[in-house]
Amino acid sequence: MYGHIYHTFERAPASLVERFRGVSTSTLSDAMGRHGAMKSNIRPIYDDISMVGSAFTVLCFPGDNIMTHKALQMVGPGDVLVIDDGDYDTGCFGHRSALQARSRGCVGLVASGSIRDLALLRKERFPVFSRSVSPRAPQKSTPGSINVPVHVGGLVVNPGDIIVGDDDGVVVVPLASAEAILEKATQRDRLEAEAIAKGRTGELPLDPAHGVLEIDKLLKGKVVEHTEPYARHA
Amino acid sequence: MYGHIYHTFERAPASLVERFRGVSTSTLSDAMGRHGAMKSNIRPIYDDISMVGSAFTVLCFPGDNIMTHKALQMVGPGDVLVIDDGDYDTGCFGHRSALQARSRGCVGLVASGSIRDLALLRKERFPVFSRSVSPRAPQKSTPGSINVPVHVGGLVVNPGDIIVGDDDGVVVVPLASAEAILEKATQRDRLEAEAIAKGRTGELPLDPAHGVLEIDKLLKGKVVEHTEPYARHA
Amino acid sequence: MYGHIYHTFERAPASLVERFRGVSTSTLSDAMGRHGAMKSNIRPIYDDISMVGSAFTVLCFPGDNIMTHKALQMVGPGDVLVIDDGDYDTGCFGHRSALQARSRGCVGLVASGSIRDLALLRKERFPVFSRSVSPRAPQKSTPGSINVPVHVGGLVVNPGDIIVGDDDGVVVVPLASAEAILEKATQRDRLEAEAIAKGRTGELPLDPAHGVLEIDKLLKGKVVEHTEPYARHA
Amino acid sequence: MYGHIYHTFERAPASLVERFRGVSTSTLSDAMGRHGAMKSNIRPIYDDISMVGSAFTVLCFPGDNIMTHKALQMVGPGDVLVIDDGDYDTGCFGHRSALQARSRGCVGLVASGSIRDLALLRKERFPVFSRSVSPRAPQKSTPGSINVPVHVGGLVVNPGDIIVGDDDGVVVVPLASAEAILEKATQRDRLEAEAIAKGRTGELPLDPAHGVLEIDKLLKGKVVEHTEPYARHA
Amino acid sequence: MYGHIYHTFERAPASLVERFRGVSTSTLSDAMGRHGAMKSNIRPIYDDISMVGSAFTVLCFPGDNIMTHKALQMVGPGDVLVIDDGDYDTGCFGHRSALQARSRGCVGLVASGSIRDLALLRKERFPVFSRSVSPRAPQKSTPGSINVPVHVGGLVVNPGDIIVGDDDGVVVVPLASAEAILEKATQRDRLEAEAIAKGRTGELPLDPAHGVLEIDKLLKGKVVEHTEPYARHA
Amino acid sequence: MYGHIYHTFERAPASLVERFRGVSTSTLSDAMGRHGAMKSNIRPIYDDISMVGSAFTVLCFPGDNIMTHKALQMVGPGDVLVIDDGDYDTGCFGHRSALQARSRGCVGLVASGSIRDLALLRKERFPVFSRSVSPRAPQKSTPGSINVPVHVGGLVVNPGDIIVGDDDGVVVVPLASAEAILEKATQRDRLEAEAIAKGRTGELPLDPAHGVLEIDKLLKGKVVEHTEPYARHA
Repeated sequence: MYGHIYHTFERAPASLVERFRGVSTSTLSDAMGRHGAMKSNIRPIYDDISMVGSAFTVLCFPGDNIMTHKALQMVGPGDVLVIDDGDYDTGCFGHRSALQARSRGCVGLVASGSIRDLALLRKERFPVFSRSVSPRAPQKSTPGSINVPVHVGGLVVNPGDIIVGDDDGVVVVPLASAEAILEKATQRDRLEAEAIAKGRTGELPLDPAHGVLEIDKLLKGKVVEHTEPYARHA
Repeated sequence: MYGHIYHTFERAPASLVERFRGVSTSTLSDAMGRHGAMKSNIRPIYDDISMVGSAFTVLCFPGDNIMTHKALQMVGPGDVLVIDDGDYDTGCFGHRSALQARSRGCVGLVASGSIRDLALLRKERFPVFSRSVSPRAPQKSTPGSINVPVHVGGLVVNPGDIIVGDDDGVVVVPLASAEAILEKATQRDRLEAEAIAKGRTGELPLDPAHGVLEIDKLLKGKVVEHTEPYARHA
Repeated sequence: MYGHIYHTFERAPASLVERFRGVSTSTLSDAMGRHGAMKSNIRPIYDDISMVGSAFTVLCFPGDNIMTHKALQMVGPGDVLVIDDGDYDTGCFGHRSALQARSRGCVGLVASGSIRDLALLRKERFPVFSRSVSPRAPQKSTPGSINVPVHVGGLVVNPGDIIVGDDDGVVVVPLASAEAILEKATQRDRLEAEAIAKGRTGELPLDPAHGVLEIDKLLKGKVVEHTEPYARHA
Repeated sequence: MYGHIYHTFERAPASLVERFRGVSTSTLSDAMGRHGAMKSNIRPIYDDISMVGSAFTVLCFPGDNIMTHKALQMVGPGDVLVIDDGDYDTGCFGHRSALQARSRGCVGLVASGSIRDLALLRKERFPVFSRSVSPRAPQKSTPGSINVPVHVGGLVVNPGDIIVGDDDGVVVVPLASAEAILEKATQRDRLEAEAIAKGRTGELPLDPAHGVLEIDKLLKGKVVEHTEPYARHA
Repeated sequence: MYGHIYHTFERAPASLVERFRGVSTSTLSDAMGRHGAMKSNIRPIYDDISMVGSAFTVLCFPGDNIMTHKALQMVGPGDVLVIDDGDYDTGCFGHRSALQARSRGCVGLVASGSIRDLALLRKERFPVFSRSVSPRAPQKSTPGSINVPVHVGGLVVNPGDIIVGDDDGVVVVPLASAEAILEKATQRDRLEAEAIAKGRTGELPLDPAHGVLEIDKLLKGKVVEHTEPYARHA
Repeated sequence: MYGHIYHTFERAPASLVERFRGVSTSTLSDAMGRHGAMKSNIRPIYDDISMVGSAFTVLCFPGDNIMTHKALQMVGPGDVLVIDDGDYDTGCFGHRSALQARSRGCVGLVASGSIRDLALLRKERFPVFSRSVSPRAPQKSTPGSINVPVHVGGLVVNPGDIIVGDDDGVVVVPLASAEAILEKATQRDRLEAEAIAKGRTGELPLDPAHGVLEIDKLLKGKVVEHTEPYARHA
């Protein structure tokens, strides 16, 4: 979808988005049946990062950020800019863009390529997840699209999808299933916290979910157990 | 979109698809304003390859091809299987899958990961474009989706998009713009052929489109011209 | 294990090794429970390649092939040289090395790095699997080891392991389990051939192993099926 | 240029070099028409880093640092060592080298490959930009060159070029154009600071340079604008 | 070696392991003739990290951590978990696994793939070295092996090998040569410290080991020295 | 060096260039002390390829080929176009460019990025070495330079350097040392051919250069030799 600008898209209610705050990306990915996590090369620019919002998607020609400039005039409160620029080695977004975005209520950025002004972005604590950092500026000449499905970090992101980022990376929660996934994830988190608490006091073993019995059952008849050490020429 | 199987999608009429045969991926990408070409790591498995069809999309969990097996029961005449399996190093599709697919009228495969039985696939002349080749088989346990938007080679592919592959790689033509893009591409091809013909006979310079005057105009005032050779310490 | 040269190792009987000829790497990997296949970046240097032999392992310091030269004086009939040189961009093995190796009965090469004299090696039809090709010669100064466990293509290779290579890549069959794995693979190949034969004539569906019923059973309750096409805002 | 040691090269006057301090690499790359920035895989070893100096270039054989040892006897005050060692996974430069270099007035290092003693280099606050970190030591046997043009991070670096590094990465300013580039960059920085100051107070929109009017003009006639949300099957 | 669980292996005495604490990975790699260092893509998850222990090895099918769960029931005091999961983009090990491991005396982790719960692992100061971080969970279905030789970071690791990690990365010391290597490394460290101390006071030049005379001797007759600067067209 | 066009440069006499024909890149790299070979990711587009010429260098902004169009009006007989476009995934050069280039006497192309029209270029037997193939066209807006030093395949290439390409890859022979390097290479080739001839007849061992005695001498005292096979727990 090249050459299309969509000025509106469906966003989740702010109250729903807000409930994702504090739910870890790991738990969310679990709740999506292991799907939904971006590739490990999309990394945050500082530690103890946290970002939750609605995807405002931008499709750039690699090395060209004219559409990002257009998006900076359109992005709205609670949005996360999700820029697909082809994993390209160019700083498609910097300090001033972050200030513009924030002034419109935008809460963060995910980019398949590079950003620049890293030190300033860190100082502003503007949440950014990207593949890399580069001082090189993009061209401004080939149009792309705004608020169409894009590709970042190995996933398709639709405008309005809920984007959650923390130190582990970024997950994309499809808007239509957001409630159900959140429910499942919250429950997992609660069970996990309980299990860890009981595990720390010794009340229960630390891994009830995949405990001794279950793992042994899964492996039964599929592995040979040896009481002697491995020896190549035994 | 995980855990959804869509049994139907809109396909372009066979007559339209057929008109894409013989149009090069380079020309098509030009006609899409330089967009629409998959990344260069998606390569054909033999030379002088040619593939045109409608995208039947499959979203697999990386390293798991259970959805591909489901897709092999659903794929239809004129379809190209487009498998998004996370660029994973596993042979998600082999000889027997190709036979199954072909028996249902499927005309080729694009995979973000690996395939296997390379020698047999070449012998069958079954058109395959993939990132790599691997003898390793996938698991069959984590569900994905069928006929939802997927990501392959840096692009979002929608079910029904027109897929064209040749020795240069793969382009994805959005279904909605297929007519317009085809028109533009066909015209480019005709002009290109004429220009080359006239260029070979010397009737015209070989590059009328970006000829001497235009390039010089674009560079005017932006470069310094030297008649002496480059010398670091001149 | 650095600085050790082992002059002997246990080889499988030639009669056993010979029975692996014609068994595909895909089938062998299946028979090893999906394990045993080298990564997809270890590629053959020509099509329709076939190689079977016992691993004679060489551990080089990256960019240094002094141990390869030593190995060329030791390698024996039916051996495949397996050179671990750290995936390094240097032509650790060329035409003359191949002639030397072949004169001693060596039947092929797997290298984690690069080889050179590609055109000549192809002309000799000397089976080579490597990560890349480079004209650059290695140094000859830092010792490594010979016939210790090494790492190539993501796998540990022990001296004496059976190495099988074809167009799909390379598999490593542990010596101790060779008989059992071969048996399982041969049986798979036979069933596969029968299934394909019957599939071609239409006597049976092409995929009995993971047929309609089984796949549907595995997916039951885990996916939602839709008869309407996917529509983002339905 | 292999096997040549040049003992002298032209350096910019210290007063000129000093004026680059505090000019960001992003601005400098802008002032060079987007050229001049090293690839994003050349990264600093600590945050809030700053480095300005004249390139003292070293061409090593990959995995061999004999020329670096020679360079450590030659490097001068205000120099940045720029080591081209083929992007190789070896710690070509460590703590002691940094102490030696600093004792001669050297102000930093850029390496296409790896360094080691990371913790100590950080403690010394010795500015280092490299592709990676590795405990492995290089060989010392194959000669290269000193103070010839080298390649690091996708750029050709000439001895005497001005090297500027900050958290975004490294830029290379050709000696001959240093004054002009500095001028342009300083002016950009001043305008940028003013614009940001006025933007923060709301006196002006945050992006006057590529403001609403200009972007819309560039996109005019090239994109279709929609007031309805994107819908695949609209 | 697939499908084998070895419950015992030879560990170095704790007193020997303890003596490796504080010896840098760089020095150890030097003492192993430059061998023994993992590739530079295996990185620690926090700065000023330190880890010493005996390798408890786990061979997983890529993207499947069933064997890790088994290992968490077996790992012992002073062990470092060394997980070979094929460099796969999945968080094979997280917070709860770390708590389990630590409760059994395990002192750290090296993984060829990804981990998750990064923020929590950092907070616990649990030493982890891995290729990357990913929220995505693995499958639990294909068996591998425990305490067989595995491959991580370009090296073969045997159960019982001594694993040392610091900010530079990870080295693997073969159990059989541990005493000899430690001796050599300790001596190097002492000489290095003395040399640096004398170098700082100016008592001696900073690089006695590869000093002016030796380097010049090695280069004698192999390089051309110039007193004029490099000039391409001189 | 951005924004400079040099219309002239020193070329080697055609008679000298011609003498490089048939000398392999491997031998040339040997004769340059192992230097001079491009990285292994620069690959030829067909087998049994052969290319010899003088470097006509082009520095493009990544993803922009305006300078290539300018170069196509300037390139001369016997020249090899050497295009540095930042390893970018765009087809910077295609069929028509090749026709234009050839009509001016240009004998081949080396590109750090991608080319397109692969099938047609192969049909024309126009020698091309590049990193990849992509249907995507570049922009034509940001100026670079012509006939300045550029970077391709890990090497600095100066205008006028002699470029030799064969199936193994590409070497760059510095113009100033061309005679000396050619001499050394020719002699190596002659000795190699003799050695192989005598080796084939059995008159001499196949590896006189690094024969039994020399290798054993180099390894003496540095490796332990074992007559028993390797056994982990011996």
